[in-house]
Amino acid sequence: MTDLHGYYFEDLKEGMTASFGKTITESDIYTFAGVSGDLNPVHVNDEFAKTTMFKGRIAHGMIGASFISAVLGTKLPGPGCIYIKQELKFKAPVKIGDTLIAHVTIKKLNPEKKFVECETVCTVGDKKVIDGEAVVMVPSRG
Amino acid sequence: MTDLHGYYFEDLKEGMTASFGKTITESDIYTFAGVSGDLNPVHVNDEFAKTTMFKGRIAHGMIGASFISAVLGTKLPGPGCIYIKQELKFKAPVKIGDTLIAHVTIKKLNPEKKFVECETVCTVGDKKVIDGEAVVMVPSRG
Amino acid sequence: MTDLHGYYFEDLKEGMTASFGKTITESDIYTFAGVSGDLNPVHVNDEFAKTTMFKGRIAHGMIGASFISAVLGTKLPGPGCIYIKQELKFKAPVKIGDTLIAHVTIKKLNPEKKFVECETVCTVGDKKVIDGEAVVMVPSRG
Amino acid sequence: MTDLHGYYFEDLKEGMTASFGKTITESDIYTFAGVSGDLNPVHVNDEFAKTTMFKGRIAHGMIGASFISAVLGTKLPGPGCIYIKQELKFKAPVKIGDTLIAHVTIKKLNPEKKFVECETVCTVGDKKVIDGEAVVMVPSRG
Repeated sequence: MTDLHGYYFEDLKEGMTASFGKTITESDIYTFAGVSGDLNPVHVNDEFAKTTMFKGRIAHGMIGASFISAVLGTKLPGPGCIYIKQELKFKAPVKIGDTLIAHVTIKKLNPEKKFVECETVCTVGDKKVIDGEAVVMVPSRG
Repeated sequence: MTDLHGYYFEDLKEGMTASFGKTITESDIYTFAGVSGDLNPVHVNDEFAKTTMFKGRIAHGMIGASFISAVLGTKLPGPGCIYIKQELKFKAPVKIGDTLIAHVTIKKLNPEKKFVECETVCTVGDKKVIDGEAVVMVPSRG
Repeated sequence: MTDLHGYYFEDLKEGMTASFGKTITESDIYTFAGVSGDLNPVHVNDEFAKTTMFKGRIAHGMIGASFISAVLGTKLPGPGCIYIKQELKFKAPVKIGDTLIAHVTIKKLNPEKKFVECETVCTVGDKKVIDGEAVVMVPSRG
Repeated sequence: MTDLHGYYFEDLKEGMTASFGKTITESDIYTFAGVSGDLNPVHVNDEFAKTTMFKGRIAHGMIGASFISAVLGTKLPGPGCIYIKQELKFKAPVKIGDTLIAHVTIKKLNPEKKFVECETVCTVGDKKVIDGEAVVMVPSRG
């Protein structure tokens, strides 16, 4: 099983980066709505959504957040890390057809607690749609 | 479509509360893994997960976060509100079969910005598994 | 339950044929990506996919392969047969909106082992997108 | 987009290996059945399946095949590679609750065609459930 493990604390350096994303489809939004129970009409009712400032259905902000979790949990630091904290600032809406990418960059390593502070940003093209920070705990090789 | 709209800013008071949750199933975790791309083996590989401190597969923290979004977006304040910010502290793991409930309580109203600050907590039984705060913007009746 | 059973070995003849397919949607590709873990950006990230020779997102080759399995397992020879071997040659990409059909034709019967050799081809219109062969074992009536 | 690209041909060496898998759930089998159309009762009808040599529902062989595709397309060689050929020998059934892992090992590099030959094996514990080989084409850095 050890080959499934991600980075250990000693392997990490400030500035390391990884990303994951998808082109957002109706299928993503509707599946996410079903599993989360977030059936807010701005996500799944186009007639309602057209009456809002967004002029149509938008993706759940938590889809972007879950892509951040995907990077942290599968790439950097990867399997074995423990999610401690996530701060999310929603800056702009994401529409069907947008390619939404989550980027994680290591900002600070805390060797005493084995805590890793990361900048976590989601983008669509050049636009930042989510800004925020994560803290994960990463096991030591020792 | 107006009957789909949630509370307007003037309708809200500090202390108002709402909740939503589900008993977490394998199907929730696997569907969430697929849509988010978060196939971290601690969520979908029971042999790996048993080697961790969790002793088995756990739900994605972002499932709890998405239940908070469900309360905010469908109940309190409900449709029409705009998600500004979410802070999440992951306190304890959630297992298959746990009934995970997200609770939102209004803590502070900011009439100038129409911002509503909420306490957002997820529980399994008496245990707090996620702690945090949200800020949403709620349209005025005016 | 016996009425659910497919052909028995004695019922089969060389040249028998059956097919199954669907028009491929975003939903098929994204659901397949989620269940398989194959989130290769050529399937789910249109910006990346546009930079490739395919000029946009393509379906997973294994979707075609799974349609072959659908024909073998539900039509010819149908329920009761056992999948021994499948060879797949991927000849051309499949795009969203293409109608992808899997065709199975019986080529050779091996009465000693109860093995049935089949030609297994997937097409989009007149174009062969997957070529290959399958071997299944089919129970005898005896 | 380039940071999403996998290995280039020059980066690959014989013996490199990667893996991906999941504990197989009812949810995986039913979702796969729906998207593939492979509703063979041995996968989705437990009463029928109990009358077979498998004594209960088994996973589609193509789920294992799709995990192989996941490794090839997301890890080794990763995004940018082109699937040319896959041979699959189904050796043993996979049951609900089994942890199914696909392993890819590079066996031979063909620099003229940029073809990479891989051993592709799926296991449950120590048991080989799928054996086979894949050929992918990997772009050159040049």
